[in-house]
Amino acid sequence: MENENIGRYGFCVEPYTEDATGHVSLSFLGNQILRCAGMHATAHGFGYEQLIEHNLVWVLSRLVLTFEDRPKTLEYYTISTWVTKVYRQFTERLFRLEAENGEPMGYGFSIWAAIDYKTRQPIDLEKLPDGGFSSVLLPKDDFPISGAGRVRVKSEEPVYQHQAGFSDLDINGHVNSMRYLEMILNLFSADFHRTHQIRRIELQFCNESYCGDTLLLFREDRNENVCDVEIRKGDAVIVRAEIETAAL
Amino acid sequence: MENENIGRYGFCVEPYTEDATGHVSLSFLGNQILRCAGMHATAHGFGYEQLIEHNLVWVLSRLVLTFEDRPKTLEYYTISTWVTKVYRQFTERLFRLEAENGEPMGYGFSIWAAIDYKTRQPIDLEKLPDGGFSSVLLPKDDFPISGAGRVRVKSEEPVYQHQAGFSDLDINGHVNSMRYLEMILNLFSADFHRTHQIRRIELQFCNESYCGDTLLLFREDRNENVCDVEIRKGDAVIVRAEIETAAL
Repeated sequence: MENENIGRYGFCVEPYTEDATGHVSLSFLGNQILRCAGMHATAHGFGYEQLIEHNLVWVLSRLVLTFEDRPKTLEYYTISTWVTKVYRQFTERLFRLEAENGEPMGYGFSIWAAIDYKTRQPIDLEKLPDGGFSSVLLPKDDFPISGAGRVRVKSEEPVYQHQAGFSDLDINGHVNSMRYLEMILNLFSADFHRTHQIRRIELQFCNESYCGDTLLLFREDRNENVCDVEIRKGDAVIVRAEIETAAL
Repeated sequence: MENENIGRYGFCVEPYTEDATGHVSLSFLGNQILRCAGMHATAHGFGYEQLIEHNLVWVLSRLVLTFEDRPKTLEYYTISTWVTKVYRQFTERLFRLEAENGEPMGYGFSIWAAIDYKTRQPIDLEKLPDGGFSSVLLPKDDFPISGAGRVRVKSEEPVYQHQAGFSDLDINGHVNSMRYLEMILNLFSADFHRTHQIRRIELQFCNESYCGDTLLLFREDRNENVCDVEIRKGDAVIVRAEIETAAL
């Protein structure tokens, strides 16, 4: 799959970035995927450095990741990313994770908004200078990610509590989006992780949280393999998530 | 400072690896420092891959890091490491953090043991094949790190609690040593971190902890700038730490 509008970024699994299963950790890989989105946006004139001049910043609204497998220590892999759609305040960006031999290991789907840093209001991405990403859009035909789910957790009994601390924050002072994923993975025991694979994760980012916030996690199992999670701060939903696992 | 027995490894601060101050996070940098130790050990015949053949693994016993400054987003930096001493069951390894222009930004001092993976007993490092690191030892003259402190926390009132989860574990299934550092940094507010700099951290790794363990943090301030921390699991001390900060 070669196309000048696809960004391709090569990596190697560095020791100390693995989880207890010996694969690159999902949160580390997730941050790399977001980094690739940033590099691709910058290469096409709409990266962080370019948007900040217009008081705009990208905000991740939704991220879906699916995995057949993940690379292990010292294995090489590639993350590809491209933009498939711009509509009103949103843009859709896709990802592909490849093993060194070119075999696909996983896919990603994301939705981003650009918001005005001061007003916190989203802007119309179809009105970006030069049409924004519109000149680099690629078709989405046969992209192997299932449609977005409808996460609704009614439980009022939290199963995990985390007080957000300094180490959870990103450069903007918000809890890093991949920290939420780590909290969600903590709902499963180490033994579960060793005997099951995370096949699909859907994350909907609804609100931001900050240092000192008490985050409560609520969980509802749909069936043996799929569960819904909400991370709440008081009455506000911070993150809605759907996790699909499969026994190894 | 050029010497074939010094390992030099170049990096760039990738977006999503910073903390809320905009500098590369201490835990990410700490993992890189440990990774450099591994690469240097491998280059000299005593890395993970070589030791595991003899059922041996390196265990980090003590780590001291001092900082004048830390690199920020997209800045380049170098981590150098070399071995200065081998005595009985221990080896001393030093680190130097340099800005792109060669200016020192920080230093590190570490003590490691090699233990038998099965018996968990340390081995005599002076009896390693070929003398171990003895052929690559470098003098420690004028290395600018103050001597090891004597951390004693009497407090029985925990100030922070963390239930270790899957995301805290390293490839060996133990809580990653840099996760302890993150918990310790969480004892200070985001505002404190924005107005103060971490100047020195000393970490003594006493015992291991695992997924599901409840870790309690106890803190005692020696004075305005120095505080001692213990991380305990029940009656067992897991980590002793001393943190020195300075107002910016």
